[in-house]
Amino acid sequence: MSQFLKVKTAGEVLSMLEGIGPLPAERVPLEFACGRTLAFDIEAAEPVPHFARSAMDGFAVRARDTFGASESLPRLLDVSGEVVMGEAPSVRVSAGRAVAIPTGGMLPEGADAVVMVEYTAQLDSETIEVTRPVAPWDNVLKVGDDIRLGERIFREGSVLRAQDIGVLAAQGRIDVQVFRVPRVAVISTGDEILPIDANPLPPGKTRDVNSFSLAAQIESAGAIVGTRMTVSDCLEDLVSACGNALETHDMVVVSGGSSVGMRDYTLRVLNALPESELLAHGVAVRPGKPTILGRSGSKIFWGLPGQPVSALIICQVFVVPSIRRLQGRAWAGMASAAAGTVPAVLNRQLPSVHGRTDYFPVVLSREGAGPLQATPVFGKSGAISVLSRADGYVIVPEHVEGIDASTEVPVYLFS
Amino acid sequence: MSQFLKVKTAGEVLSMLEGIGPLPAERVPLEFACGRTLAFDIEAAEPVPHFARSAMDGFAVRARDTFGASESLPRLLDVSGEVVMGEAPSVRVSAGRAVAIPTGGMLPEGADAVVMVEYTAQLDSETIEVTRPVAPWDNVLKVGDDIRLGERIFREGSVLRAQDIGVLAAQGRIDVQVFRVPRVAVISTGDEILPIDANPLPPGKTRDVNSFSLAAQIESAGAIVGTRMTVSDCLEDLVSACGNALETHDMVVVSGGSSVGMRDYTLRVLNALPESELLAHGVAVRPGKPTILGRSGSKIFWGLPGQPVSALIICQVFVVPSIRRLQGRAWAGMASAAAGTVPAVLNRQLPSVHGRTDYFPVVLSREGAGPLQATPVFGKSGAISVLSRADGYVIVPEHVEGIDASTEVPVYLFS
Repeated sequence: MSQFLKVKTAGEVLSMLEGIGPLPAERVPLEFACGRTLAFDIEAAEPVPHFARSAMDGFAVRARDTFGASESLPRLLDVSGEVVMGEAPSVRVSAGRAVAIPTGGMLPEGADAVVMVEYTAQLDSETIEVTRPVAPWDNVLKVGDDIRLGERIFREGSVLRAQDIGVLAAQGRIDVQVFRVPRVAVISTGDEILPIDANPLPPGKTRDVNSFSLAAQIESAGAIVGTRMTVSDCLEDLVSACGNALETHDMVVVSGGSSVGMRDYTLRVLNALPESELLAHGVAVRPGKPTILGRSGSKIFWGLPGQPVSALIICQVFVVPSIRRLQGRAWAGMASAAAGTVPAVLNRQLPSVHGRTDYFPVVLSREGAGPLQATPVFGKSGAISVLSRADGYVIVPEHVEGIDASTEVPVYLFS
Repeated sequence: MSQFLKVKTAGEVLSMLEGIGPLPAERVPLEFACGRTLAFDIEAAEPVPHFARSAMDGFAVRARDTFGASESLPRLLDVSGEVVMGEAPSVRVSAGRAVAIPTGGMLPEGADAVVMVEYTAQLDSETIEVTRPVAPWDNVLKVGDDIRLGERIFREGSVLRAQDIGVLAAQGRIDVQVFRVPRVAVISTGDEILPIDANPLPPGKTRDVNSFSLAAQIESAGAIVGTRMTVSDCLEDLVSACGNALETHDMVVVSGGSSVGMRDYTLRVLNALPESELLAHGVAVRPGKPTILGRSGSKIFWGLPGQPVSALIICQVFVVPSIRRLQGRAWAGMASAAAGTVPAVLNRQLPSVHGRTDYFPVVLSREGAGPLQATPVFGKSGAISVLSRADGYVIVPEHVEGIDASTEVPVYLFS
């Protein structure tokens, strides 16, 4: 393992994450598939509709029998029965005849169009007049008009939404193959960290914030947090906890104590794990510079800062994308790329330095009908209330030395 | 029950929903509280930090001992020990002395500031020189600096995010009182509807799309779908299914068949339910005009169109907001108000009429570095592929007669 890595940029770390492949596929019933990622393309096994269907309430006709019809010169047609919803028609449409049909009803043999009920008038129980002509296949969904047989309806890597589940239901898919849900272990360490039920809290100690906030964020990203624990700042205990976690999880996220030298401590844990490799030791970001990325075999190891604001931001900007890779979300649609951010006008300057990516927690507000405004939330290092006050964060990219007040910026919302 | 209601506007229906109160509160462990809505304000039961804490790695000092220090005229201080992370200091800082302290370490008695290690130099094992002065409380988080004792940290009605869970962990809250999760029954009806495993599908029939897509959308909104079923288009069966569902659910959503007269059919079901009241019978929207809103006692009853695109849009624009009311999400923060939409430029004109609210499904795309573009997805009525192709929808409000091409509009993303 190379110990002489220089600090990576945020972009370099994100590029590394692109090498992470999805977990194996599994088959899940359709009713549990919403939010999961397809492991294979899906092609239509049936055309939709699978029978020629009326798109309107009206009368099934032969289009040519309506040609020339108008308000002043209506065409008269004999009504010979009706189509019953959900049933194959028992009548056919011959020349000069019409059959009543509801929206969704099956087009009777002989008919090639539907006249909307609005453009007809009932003369007597057996005759209608048609006041507008229809062209062949007007107001009809032909076989496959909606979805063609064999058409690719979903791509591998797409995340199934509610409506996609509906389309798969129409296709009669009772289950789908999706990538397995990542299992993540969240371990919080530090000599000053006590479980949250510690009461009273002795001077010098703090309660475990990170295992709760990180686990919640990781679960919001669609992963399962199997293990969530606090481990004392002891190398042996930590190596043992991480080693055990790796056996039943796809990723281990350790948030370290904030004590001096903690960074190298997490590194020693990674070193002690089987088939381990250090991929990034320090990232040129603020906050969160001491972040560590490594792997143990095919499992992912993250070492996060102990400071809660830093840990949560690093989790959102690096850990969550690594989870998305395990989920196989290779194909991010336009919507998902743009979702999760809102445009807002900065109302203070954000300082940064060239070569470093900065993440500034901000509060959103709006005066009257004005644009959304983003106000940076500053707090002394270690202040956790920054977290609950902030709505999201603004990124000052690597090659930018700061952002001026009054600039419109995307605000990345905390999930 | 008044049968003579006129069609309501979308705004009127949304106003009615404001009268829906939250479900009763329940206590849940903190680790399951992310995404839930607080039933009460939460005040800080402890100050954070609960001891004066260093915000930097450095030396705890008496600020006045550093006054006048500079690079050229450093102050010399005797180092008398160090603060150990997580422990109460065993030393105190007296005049002319300094104690080494890590970030997060407890400030020793006698000290009132921390000099950052960057502005010190170690002369020998017992002496440092300080090259910059500090003011009292520099680099120190005093008791309550982060969160004051008794301060309101969360408001009733706020949805707990990952970072909020962290703040509550810091406060030692092992559980929180949140509004109960709504239980929703989804019932799909229509003589042409068959279960999704029907194979082969007879002519004239379609598979049940709505119970799957509506259930998925309702679950994405954070509700529990207890019952999801298909019921034949028979009044008695439908009344019985809805009646049973109301006993164990907070809301029943019926999506009707698309046959003529189905609208009144759902109305008769509502009429037959105990303590029922019709609140809206038809809404001036497109699609989804035949929507019905009613109640049975304190339970909510929705009658949705059977056409899958209409049903899903009505679910998103009306049913989901009614679920949010049951969840007690009274207080929508700036972030949540703006989230779920992206700005895009329309590339076609959207026609509408005054007095009606239109929802147009759109696909998002982008050319190079240009703005997001929204292209309306048109399909013959009944086409379900519109659903899987669309990224979201554009609203043409009631008092607008259409939106011109090239206008920037918010696109509401399908969840």
